[in-house]
Amino acid sequence: MSGPLLTVKASAQTTPSGNPLPSWNDGAPKQAILDFVRATTDTASPNHVPPEDRIAVFDQDGTLWVEHPMYTQVMYCLERVPAVTAGKPALKDVEPFKTVLSGDREAIAKLSMRDLEEILAATLTGMSVDEFDAEAKQWLETARHPRWKRPYTELVYQPMLEVLRFLRDNGYKTYIVTGGGQDFVRVYAEQVYGIPPEQVIGSAGGTKYGYGNDGKPFLTKEPKLILNDNDAGKPEGIHLMVGRRPYAAFGNSTGDREMLEWTGAGAGARLKMLVLHDDDAREYAYGPAQGLPDSKVGTFTSALYDEAKKDGWSVISMKNDWKRIFAFQ
Amino acid sequence: MSGPLLTVKASAQTTPSGNPLPSWNDGAPKQAILDFVRATTDTASPNHVPPEDRIAVFDQDGTLWVEHPMYTQVMYCLERVPAVTAGKPALKDVEPFKTVLSGDREAIAKLSMRDLEEILAATLTGMSVDEFDAEAKQWLETARHPRWKRPYTELVYQPMLEVLRFLRDNGYKTYIVTGGGQDFVRVYAEQVYGIPPEQVIGSAGGTKYGYGNDGKPFLTKEPKLILNDNDAGKPEGIHLMVGRRPYAAFGNSTGDREMLEWTGAGAGARLKMLVLHDDDAREYAYGPAQGLPDSKVGTFTSALYDEAKKDGWSVISMKNDWKRIFAFQ
Ligand SMILES: [Ca+2]
Ligand SMILES: [Ca+2]
Repeated sequence: MSGPLLTVKASAQTTPSGNPLPSWNDGAPKQAILDFVRATTDTASPNHVPPEDRIAVFDQDGTLWVEHPMYTQVMYCLERVPAVTAGKPALKDVEPFKTVLSGDREAIAKLSMRDLEEILAATLTGMSVDEFDAEAKQWLETARHPRWKRPYTELVYQPMLEVLRFLRDNGYKTYIVTGGGQDFVRVYAEQVYGIPPEQVIGSAGGTKYGYGNDGKPFLTKEPKLILNDNDAGKPEGIHLMVGRRPYAAFGNSTGDREMLEWTGAGAGARLKMLVLHDDDAREYAYGPAQGLPDSKVGTFTSALYDEAKKDGWSVISMKNDWKRIFAFQ
Repeated sequence: MSGPLLTVKASAQTTPSGNPLPSWNDGAPKQAILDFVRATTDTASPNHVPPEDRIAVFDQDGTLWVEHPMYTQVMYCLERVPAVTAGKPALKDVEPFKTVLSGDREAIAKLSMRDLEEILAATLTGMSVDEFDAEAKQWLETARHPRWKRPYTELVYQPMLEVLRFLRDNGYKTYIVTGGGQDFVRVYAEQVYGIPPEQVIGSAGGTKYGYGNDGKPFLTKEPKLILNDNDAGKPEGIHLMVGRRPYAAFGNSTGDREMLEWTGAGAGARLKMLVLHDDDAREYAYGPAQGLPDSKVGTFTSALYDEAKKDGWSVISMKNDWKRIFAFQ
């Protein structure tokens, strides 16, 4: 292991004049990232971390890519409904599918959590893992975000892509730890973020092993939740899937609180950062922290903001700390 | 990623005269390993596998280390009973703890599966993950195998250590996929096998996030099974934790059948190998395949043997294919 990692380290050290975070404005959050990497990779540092322990975790929705007006995976589920009901015509006249098929945006926005769970189960389970992969891949190629009219996979935050790369260039293994579906995010994480499937932790359902008519085995996605990767489920999921405490954690909402606490409770230098969406012009503005508009999607409460300030977590202002938001800008 | 992996590949290619499997006798199983690695890493091969897809999975008990007369983790649980009952004296006079404390080997061997589950729950759950790590580590340092009077961690098969290293030297990511406890195996897997915790998949219980009196968060091991990593649970666990199909799979019992089937159902060159314990002199002999004595621990049935022969899986004879079993011999 030392060979490859030394190579990585050497290449990082031979470009000291390069700016690894060109889309970041100078300021406390950028400095916190640079200081953390120096403190944990410099062998002379009292907080040096052995390469094998360098784990960094990133929430996805609202931390790595856009989550408004609605989580991308929920858009996927809603837009999959016509295909699912085409295969099961009896569902067309049954709620909540009838409302989704009506295209009535106001009515769809009023669907209950129970309705939504029924839609998620119908669109995310019951098929083989290979079928799901193919369906999600095809949707991602054709679906467009309502505001930018671009594929969702282009709506990733350029400054965060730079952080991912900078950490990896310094021997960190980068993980996604998302409340979104693990299988869904794995479809594009390698291409979009450079994060392989085994480093994507997300809400995960069970699968069931069985055999096709040809005798070949396959796995079917089951409507049984194994890991609800939100809130306390994030550190629990990290323990299940990684088995080590991270040194760096990035999030943007109350769902990331426990993950940042868990990261911060370790010894030595630990980086804890929250993205605050305060840029209505270039992206969206929501909190309700700092007097920003409240939101059900990606809620950043004042209590979370207070905890961040009290415990020395960094709050990233999208408006002030990011020179640009997207690569296409 | 290409830099480090190219380095690894170059070093493997510059020692073509070296024997990567010195503890293996020449024969079909050794040749199958060598052929597989050549076929999947030679860029001119029709079965070349990109480095990021090179996943190899290994069962542990009976495949990487000794599992007789009893699985090591079960020995751990039985030997932890005095410490657990010391903390909860009321348990001392209650079955099955009373029998375990009696030291009566015959009575202990007759404990039911339900008794055993009660002992597992009492010794593997209810403590923080850090406490469990410390307890397991301490036991592994002092416990001795009844036959060899050596630490269990020395009873690993030298030929399999060579396979692990040979695959890693050729860009493979090696995983343990064990029916044993994930947290237990993670305590020593890095030191013993060179496999980091995040590449150990095992039977896993849930954890619960909470706060100590000092306000610090911790995770408590819960008696709730999330993944039963045996039989169909192995491919299901691989999907959950890795999200890619392995190219190579090693096992030794009926509990590995589905994992080898799942591996073999992929396209291209796939290596499927089973260790047959047929060496009573140097280790143990059990089947009941090939007329070997039957065993409840690590059962290798004739049906599994037939499936292996039919589907072109390799069966490794410990007696004939392994020059030596342990590093200390
Ligand atoms: Ca989020
Ligand atoms: Ca086994």
